[in-house]
Amino acid sequence: MRICFLGDSFVNGTGDDTALGWPGRLVADLRTRGRDVTYYNLGIRRDTSADIAARWHDEVERRFRTDEPRRLLFSFGANDCASDEAGHPRVPPDAGLHNATAILSAAKRIAPVLMVGPAPILDDAVADDRVRRLSDAFETLCRSLEIPYLAIFPFLSACADWRREAVAGDGTHPNQKGYAALADFIGRWPDCVTWASPPEA
Amino acid sequence: MRICFLGDSFVNGTGDDTALGWPGRLVADLRTRGRDVTYYNLGIRRDTSADIAARWHDEVERRFRTDEPRRLLFSFGANDCASDEAGHPRVPPDAGLHNATAILSAAKRIAPVLMVGPAPILDDAVADDRVRRLSDAFETLCRSLEIPYLAIFPFLSACADWRREAVAGDGTHPNQKGYAALADFIGRWPDCVTWASPPEA
Repeated sequence: MRICFLGDSFVNGTGDDTALGWPGRLVADLRTRGRDVTYYNLGIRRDTSADIAARWHDEVERRFRTDEPRRLLFSFGANDCASDEAGHPRVPPDAGLHNATAILSAAKRIAPVLMVGPAPILDDAVADDRVRRLSDAFETLCRSLEIPYLAIFPFLSACADWRREAVAGDGTHPNQKGYAALADFIGRWPDCVTWASPPEA
Repeated sequence: MRICFLGDSFVNGTGDDTALGWPGRLVADLRTRGRDVTYYNLGIRRDTSADIAARWHDEVERRFRTDEPRRLLFSFGANDCASDEAGHPRVPPDAGLHNATAILSAAKRIAPVLMVGPAPILDDAVADDRVRRLSDAFETLCRSLEIPYLAIFPFLSACADWRREAVAGDGTHPNQKGYAALADFIGRWPDCVTWASPPEA
């Protein structure tokens, strides 16, 4: 099975001294349970929904030239909500929803898709208020597209390891305990278990 | 510092149950020694020099939209040498050298570049004879371009962990001990130490 993880710095695993991030931990767990998974981490720091809309298809197409079963996971939105120099969101929520609709409705024609909601920025309360609302809007969108959606904003906002490591780091990105907590949270999500199961199961 | 690793399945870390591959191990080692490194693993299974020539610039450009110091590392060639259905190399050596010249001469204008030679395929002796010759030709090319080059074909051909894990796996890709041995071999390469050093050092 080939999995592409597309998103922002939280998908990239920025700040993780183990260099795994949560996608690496999720895949290592699948592999040690005997699953033949190859993964491509396509998280890019500072990427908004607009950046991902512009690149995801090209980058996925190059990695899915295979008859192997394919899976896609997206997670973005925090950088949409970050403030630009004028204090406005880098991508307005209407545009973010438009981008997410375009991405997800095309992606589901290629492979089974999961959407993981945006993470909190933590050191910007105004931006995090936007993230919370965008996460809710993405949840409604995904329900209408019949794509499983997991909100992580409430979990991470209350996760002591995540918050502590972010404060000790750059204010936003955790280190290995935070990413391990998120990998565990996503890995126990029943829709993720189903999505990662072999097609014949 | 932002590092892009571009290449084939051996860069991707295919077969590694830890989901790190050698780039993940190299970066984890740098980070635990206090270096603020973000990395992008852009290895794709089955990619030849032609595939990488077609995509590397787009994928790197999207990841280098930053003022942070940048580094590029390439490693390809094994898939050029693999046999197509007619028994010929998938990419003839002249074309492979042409692709490598185009990639590397453009890349060195963007960031400090390292080239790591192609890995053996192991379960195809005819193909590996081609890999050995292509590795030598890449070494000559890199000398003329003043790009540091590390041949890994001889090291991996003699590496017991690499060979044992490849046999236990799909015949070509090792698992965690093999990738750890390669990460160590590359990490101790003096040109790699210099390349990964902070610009101010």
